[in-house]
Amino acid sequence: MTTSLAIIGLGLIGASVARGVRQAMPDCRIIGWDLDAETCTRALALGIIDRAGSDVEDAATDADLVVVATPVRSIAALVASALAAAPAAAVTDTGSVKGAIVSALQADGIDTQRFVPGHPVAGSERFGVEAGDAELFRGRRVILTPHPGTSPDALSKVRALWEALGARIDCMSAQHHDEVLAATSHLPHALAYALVDCLNALDERREIFAFAAGGFRDFTRIASSSPTMWRDILLENREALDPMLRRFSDTLEQLRSALNAGDEAVVLATLMRARSARQRFLSLMESTESNSDAVKES
Amino acid sequence: MTTSLAIIGLGLIGASVARGVRQAMPDCRIIGWDLDAETCTRALALGIIDRAGSDVEDAATDADLVVVATPVRSIAALVASALAAAPAAAVTDTGSVKGAIVSALQADGIDTQRFVPGHPVAGSERFGVEAGDAELFRGRRVILTPHPGTSPDALSKVRALWEALGARIDCMSAQHHDEVLAATSHLPHALAYALVDCLNALDERREIFAFAAGGFRDFTRIASSSPTMWRDILLENREALDPMLRRFSDTLEQLRSALNAGDEAVVLATLMRARSARQRFLSLMESTESNSDAVKES
Repeated sequence: MTTSLAIIGLGLIGASVARGVRQAMPDCRIIGWDLDAETCTRALALGIIDRAGSDVEDAATDADLVVVATPVRSIAALVASALAAAPAAAVTDTGSVKGAIVSALQADGIDTQRFVPGHPVAGSERFGVEAGDAELFRGRRVILTPHPGTSPDALSKVRALWEALGARIDCMSAQHHDEVLAATSHLPHALAYALVDCLNALDERREIFAFAAGGFRDFTRIASSSPTMWRDILLENREALDPMLRRFSDTLEQLRSALNAGDEAVVLATLMRARSARQRFLSLMESTESNSDAVKES
Repeated sequence: MTTSLAIIGLGLIGASVARGVRQAMPDCRIIGWDLDAETCTRALALGIIDRAGSDVEDAATDADLVVVATPVRSIAALVASALAAAPAAAVTDTGSVKGAIVSALQADGIDTQRFVPGHPVAGSERFGVEAGDAELFRGRRVILTPHPGTSPDALSKVRALWEALGARIDCMSAQHHDEVLAATSHLPHALAYALVDCLNALDERREIFAFAAGGFRDFTRIASSSPTMWRDILLENREALDPMLRRFSDTLEQLRSALNAGDEAVVLATLMRARSARQRFLSLMESTESNSDAVKES
């Protein structure tokens, strides 16, 4: 049972964890820290943290559990600081890439028994402490990537936190996580950014955007996500992302060839496979959400 | 002033025109026809048409204005039939591709003075007569592609129809329309279908879709559109689509190279350009919608 939680990084994810814990575990004390002092002040004013740490070590020192919710490239160093400052605490993170973080800690010879790498598969193109939402994780999946040496106590503490926020936990290897996310999240983001950048480069760009409709708006929503955050995610996971990008380019090239050859059967088969795969995805998504509602109501 | 309107094809677009006209021009008589007899029966039962024609000629014969709202590949022949059956009527269509339709009519030596090619840039992944929505075109753009020989009377009749449904009219050449739509609509559809098909081909597909989140759902929404409709659109507009597909592949390849080279500056610049272009698109979209609201309220 976590009685004192430290949250390192008070952006959308950190602030949403804080709000969710306030609701689900009202007796839990929350200490926050953010690189931006103004963000700490706003978090205190919003009442989502009880105290702002003066630095990472100060924030982590009395915590049972530390959640590092900062941009992926900063996570490994902050996890190392938290592990050192709070010698009994469990430490977890929320980064969208897992292998690079674990490798960086191992390369520095850090003992990672108390570190449980995590990734809530939830988000929004909004960001900042004000965007925090206690319900952000409800019905969503949180992937944890423990390794054989992970402390069972640390794992169960992290699992309990996410379950209290209404999430469903899945455990898998860091490598598998990075491959799955490359396919379902990092590849779509790369495509959305590339599409908008491509159209922007066309001379008639004003007119082009003027005639784009709702489909374009939804398709490119993820291209409004934070550019620095996504630069880091795409770069940190480039090893898993590259084969997905090549696989996608091959599929697109096959569709282009079929179109240019006027091959109606191949074009139709591609579109039908895609449509039925997406319907399957929608059913999976609905069943996850309704399972979570059932748990919530019982 | 249109007092008798024929709608050929009672899918989402045709049924939405019917519902919108019912609301905006309650005295206008509406005759409908659809290849599927059951759809005609349902349209009559829903009260969105006054009479179902026994065939295209019968539906068009007494109309002042004929709207052909069928799949793109069937439009040219139906426009020719309507022009012949109703020798004084204006005829328009709603196809997402314009050049191929005009070329097909010209190749058959049809006099196209009374034909005003049109395209409401609005839609939904839903389809069928029940999906009809009187508000579908409100605040949306309708592109008309008249040619130098187009009858001014026919043009103003078609323009008045769409304005009555709350749409904003833009005129441009058929070729320009096809290029703009290839960029903003047909290319995104091709990418969404290719992405879902690509992920579907991965062995671990069940798990991959299980970990996809809201961003993926929005990004792929357009891949739930009708496969036969989109086979036709992509094939009919392949001449304008091919350069867009190649341009996109080049942009994506540049991003992939930058990622593999660890070139943070190029990756960040790409993402920032894309994000600010999308914000510009959102402002344009909002200003179109608020202009239309102002017109509606005045």
